[in-house]
Amino acid sequence: MTISSQKITLTHSLQGNRRYRGKLTILGCGSALPTKNNFPTSQILELRDKQYMIDCGEGTQIKMNQLGVKTTRLGRIFISHLHGDHFLGLVGMISTFGMLKRTADLHIHAHPDLERILSPLLNYLCVDLPFKLEFHPINPAENKLIFEDKSVEVYTIPLRHRVPACGFLFKEKQGLRHIKREMIDFYEIPISKINRIKQGDDYITQAGETISNEILTTPPNPPFQYAFCSDTCYLESIIPIIKGVDLLYHEATFAESEAVRARQTIHSTARQAALIAKKAEVKKLIIGHFSARYNDKSILLNEAKEVFENTELAEDGKVFYT
Amino acid sequence: MTISSQKITLTHSLQGNRRYRGKLTILGCGSALPTKNNFPTSQILELRDKQYMIDCGEGTQIKMNQLGVKTTRLGRIFISHLHGDHFLGLVGMISTFGMLKRTADLHIHAHPDLERILSPLLNYLCVDLPFKLEFHPINPAENKLIFEDKSVEVYTIPLRHRVPACGFLFKEKQGLRHIKREMIDFYEIPISKINRIKQGDDYITQAGETISNEILTTPPNPPFQYAFCSDTCYLESIIPIIKGVDLLYHEATFAESEAVRARQTIHSTARQAALIAKKAEVKKLIIGHFSARYNDKSILLNEAKEVFENTELAEDGKVFYT
Repeated sequence: MTISSQKITLTHSLQGNRRYRGKLTILGCGSALPTKNNFPTSQILELRDKQYMIDCGEGTQIKMNQLGVKTTRLGRIFISHLHGDHFLGLVGMISTFGMLKRTADLHIHAHPDLERILSPLLNYLCVDLPFKLEFHPINPAENKLIFEDKSVEVYTIPLRHRVPACGFLFKEKQGLRHIKREMIDFYEIPISKINRIKQGDDYITQAGETISNEILTTPPNPPFQYAFCSDTCYLESIIPIIKGVDLLYHEATFAESEAVRARQTIHSTARQAALIAKKAEVKKLIIGHFSARYNDKSILLNEAKEVFENTELAEDGKVFYT
Repeated sequence: MTISSQKITLTHSLQGNRRYRGKLTILGCGSALPTKNNFPTSQILELRDKQYMIDCGEGTQIKMNQLGVKTTRLGRIFISHLHGDHFLGLVGMISTFGMLKRTADLHIHAHPDLERILSPLLNYLCVDLPFKLEFHPINPAENKLIFEDKSVEVYTIPLRHRVPACGFLFKEKQGLRHIKREMIDFYEIPISKINRIKQGDDYITQAGETISNEILTTPPNPPFQYAFCSDTCYLESIIPIIKGVDLLYHEATFAESEAVRARQTIHSTARQAALIAKKAEVKKLIIGHFSARYNDKSILLNEAKEVFENTELAEDGKVFYT
């Protein structure tokens, strides 16, 4: 019985040694007008076995279903701004969660207007939800910690758009050290000690011998950082906030030939997104929020890559592991 | 110039001789829970070159885009009931119509609660729409004429569901007679007379000879009738209302093995839909609003066909011509 439990614990901790630190699933990366290929904005970040949704455009629940994305570990949704293509999928999805008898709390972090404009609909469609639905107002104009638990901190990133808008910075906290399974077996260390060892403690055997933590563990993964910045014009004030993140998703609604239109609509070009990535020295850039006019997005990718080589195009259904 | 205009008129009237009387495009035929294959309910009926939308579930504008369905001739939307899978696509679509600079009025016929619950969202997202958006309250409990123009009458069909719900009966009015182009050419009939001839008048030549209307025209198409009935339990009271229609869309959420569940949720089985079709002596039945549990819908089709042979399955993107 003890052996079996220990096995489970070890397997679980091996899962902690996961091959990726952050997993980002793009559900939609289109902009306001729907297209054949792109649903509006929504994505799911997975970090230490928890899921965080960012934006929830119309059809998000449909796309999740098409892709077979499960949301059993989704507890929090972060809404960047109140344009329809970033939140109109919320009510349908919440209603479906109710029908599927979800019981875990669901938290929505968004501009305070969201609760007001959705309440009549929610009160009409989602009576007697079997879970607690809670709105948390955010001020998009501030760079502020808006959520924290034992594994992650989430900050708002003030952006500039036609309506109040902010990005989100997910900063993983320093994780636990990884145990070396064969050493745990060798010293027959009881399961009750594992957690302290993961936290850095040495182990003292029954004979009184001290086994140094370095023998029993390897260092924790470096904390993962992800920044989501959409919708926004080119905005250098975000650079210090997102400095050096592992992954940056930045909107790139237009190509350079539409730079005037980008200025008018307070969006970015792909080249501008890449400039931000370069100046912020991020490790990787994903561009998205494509205007409906770009059926072929290679022009956007090429223009970004000229400035920042490690750029990839977002794509509905694409998964990025870091 | 006259010849050219006449040509245009004749071409147009030949379009009047269209190969179909009614065209029904299924945009979505799923039920409340999204599935890989089915969007929630929405369809477009085309009758005498006008489009009427029935229901507008989440993602309707996305599906229209995927299918390349244009809505330039869409003026009226009819909402059967206020469950989310029948109307949550409205706000996004209206917002998109605004961005695309639509100018034609848009009329929505629905339970009066719809305007109330959507207003905060519409007032927030759809300020300064370049077209007039008008809600027309309907009483789902009545069988009543709710819209009429020169070519069609639309009636509500009281249904029974968990919330107030109604179907819609579209009754085409008797159309104009079709001119025989070769006879018009032969008698050199001026364009100014064509419309009266289509309405049944004889033609008197300059020499005073009377040309009987039967020589110049063929009879008009028989008026087309379409009935949409979803969501509802098995309800015989609708039979006299939909008697003999060309096309009946009836919900068939469940197979007979789930008859108890159908009763509990106040839905119909495929067999019940077929029974209604048979008793109402309709010409053709389309079943839809499939529960998410049926990946393969052949069981529903087979159970319906046992009772009413001329049954077809709805399918997202399928077009029915009558």
